[in-house]
Amino acid sequence: MTVPFATIAEFRALLHDLPAADAEAREGAAARNAQLTKPPGALGRLEDLALWYAGWRGDARPRMAHPQVIVFAGNHGVVAQGVSAFPPEVTVQMVANFEHGGAAINRLAQAFGARMSVHALSLDTPTADFTRGPAMSESECVAALATGWAAVEPDTDLLVTGEMGIGNTTSAAALALALFGGEPDDWVGRGTGVDDAGLARKRDAVAAGLATNPGAPRDPLAALVALGGREIAAMAGAIAGARARRIPVILDGFICSSAAAVLERAVPGALDHAVAGHMSAEAGHERLLRHLGKEPLLSLNMRLGEGTGAALAIAVLQGAVACHSGMATFAEAGVSGG
Amino acid sequence: MTVPFATIAEFRALLHDLPAADAEAREGAAARNAQLTKPPGALGRLEDLALWYAGWRGDARPRMAHPQVIVFAGNHGVVAQGVSAFPPEVTVQMVANFEHGGAAINRLAQAFGARMSVHALSLDTPTADFTRGPAMSESECVAALATGWAAVEPDTDLLVTGEMGIGNTTSAAALALALFGGEPDDWVGRGTGVDDAGLARKRDAVAAGLATNPGAPRDPLAALVALGGREIAAMAGAIAGARARRIPVILDGFICSSAAAVLERAVPGALDHAVAGHMSAEAGHERLLRHLGKEPLLSLNMRLGEGTGAALAIAVLQGAVACHSGMATFAEAGVSGG
Repeated sequence: MTVPFATIAEFRALLHDLPAADAEAREGAAARNAQLTKPPGALGRLEDLALWYAGWRGDARPRMAHPQVIVFAGNHGVVAQGVSAFPPEVTVQMVANFEHGGAAINRLAQAFGARMSVHALSLDTPTADFTRGPAMSESECVAALATGWAAVEPDTDLLVTGEMGIGNTTSAAALALALFGGEPDDWVGRGTGVDDAGLARKRDAVAAGLATNPGAPRDPLAALVALGGREIAAMAGAIAGARARRIPVILDGFICSSAAAVLERAVPGALDHAVAGHMSAEAGHERLLRHLGKEPLLSLNMRLGEGTGAALAIAVLQGAVACHSGMATFAEAGVSGG
Repeated sequence: MTVPFATIAEFRALLHDLPAADAEAREGAAARNAQLTKPPGALGRLEDLALWYAGWRGDARPRMAHPQVIVFAGNHGVVAQGVSAFPPEVTVQMVANFEHGGAAINRLAQAFGARMSVHALSLDTPTADFTRGPAMSESECVAALATGWAAVEPDTDLLVTGEMGIGNTTSAAALALALFGGEPDDWVGRGTGVDDAGLARKRDAVAAGLATNPGAPRDPLAALVALGGREIAAMAGAIAGARARRIPVILDGFICSSAAAVLERAVPGALDHAVAGHMSAEAGHERLLRHLGKEPLLSLNMRLGEGTGAALAIAVLQGAVACHSGMATFAEAGVSGG
């Protein structure tokens, strides 16, 4: 999609001018839902999902034909602080794995009929170590936001954004701390599996990041520049770009949710087009979803990232839409009780 | 499948001679899982599911090609006690809806590539009112068990059983009370949506059922005969028949789980080939799953029956198997850290 911003200020202005859901389509979907051959409310959250999807698609009886999964990859200067159990070269190795179809997200995207693309963002040039200064320049952050925005295909009718980036749970924790406050311990977790010493280094790095970038807590977009990463900014850009086209989004785990939270903290309601796909096992995710007011669809103890939790939740939404748009009404089926 | 029993005693004997999972296949799957391109354990319950599935399929790298959904329908004499918000003719009307593809379970089965069949069990001859005497004769119950057993296709590699039967939450509650004890209130819920007076009538009917059939709590299969229904017995027969062929099963909500519980109470371990697809909003289901030691895969406030919660969970298992059998290993992908 064409990118309508060239600065952080222009991106910020766009967030204040986001489209709402189509209230008429949602009402039409509610009226249809009341006529379907089931007791009222018996499909539980599937009914809520169908109405939400109908509103964003502007169609009381929508189809879902073109789900899209986009995986963004970035490298992080903060790995110099010893915050990951894996070496940074794993980022580029995993990008190759995504390109060859061998990663979990490839298998899940294929299982549920989603197109998948991978965007590696300047892997040879990691962000700066945010314990020493801002992770990105404003123009680096804008470039990443733009990559994300442009990566959303125009015909996409459901978006999942995923990520790969050794060190990025540390970046996400620092970002969450800047956005929502609390203590570093509230947001730091074991990521891909650091030991206790690694966890202590993550906590120290997050604390140092906030001390070094004192402006971050005052402005969500400044926090993204100072503490985020390219793949995190790209996810924020893609989620915003989806909203501009009224494309519904399923959020993945802790890192994706921290990227999304930048938008919601900048403009409350900016994530109304998004549902939480799952509750990650990563420590801070439950707290983050609570701050966002999002109830996860799945809770399966997953903590892989890549978009995997959200990709699995595509199936839940497919089920919801299939029931809503495909079931017979009481009148059509000749069933008593409608 | 051929039915190897003609009496309750023969069915009982079969339950004592059920096959176990293939330990070697499961170990092979665990070894493969440890080599896949992800941090250990990062796919959470998907990894557990893949290993469980591999064990029952006898294949360390299984495929899932032929899931099957079977919906059984029956009518219940206990509706004379005013226990349902819908009239009993809805059972046959919904069978027609299933046959024409208009029900929720049709849409979910199709969405996830499962074959679906419907078996209406003597709808013109409801079971007897169990507040006055046994719901079924032994031979009626055996016929229903046999219908279920025979309905499982030989090439099925994942089974979901669902049900339709006006009045059957009352039957399931009475059965659960006989199997696990407690009070009628522990097991009675609003079903398809009865009001407070209807709920009180359900509670009274369940209490009367146990008083009228005092042998039920002493023998799970006697409880099935006295308090169950044809569709409930057919689900029990299908779940047992699946086990005889080592076909994994996803359990649906309260009624399906009460049918399955008959097997587990008769022979502990009889449900090792089954996972709980979801947590129903029907009041007694959480307690029932706790008694069975099954953690639900989904919790989406659904309470429709028909097999809908389990059918949605087919997707979770498809995702688990797709990752397990389709992902690259560290060595194949050239990723560090394996």
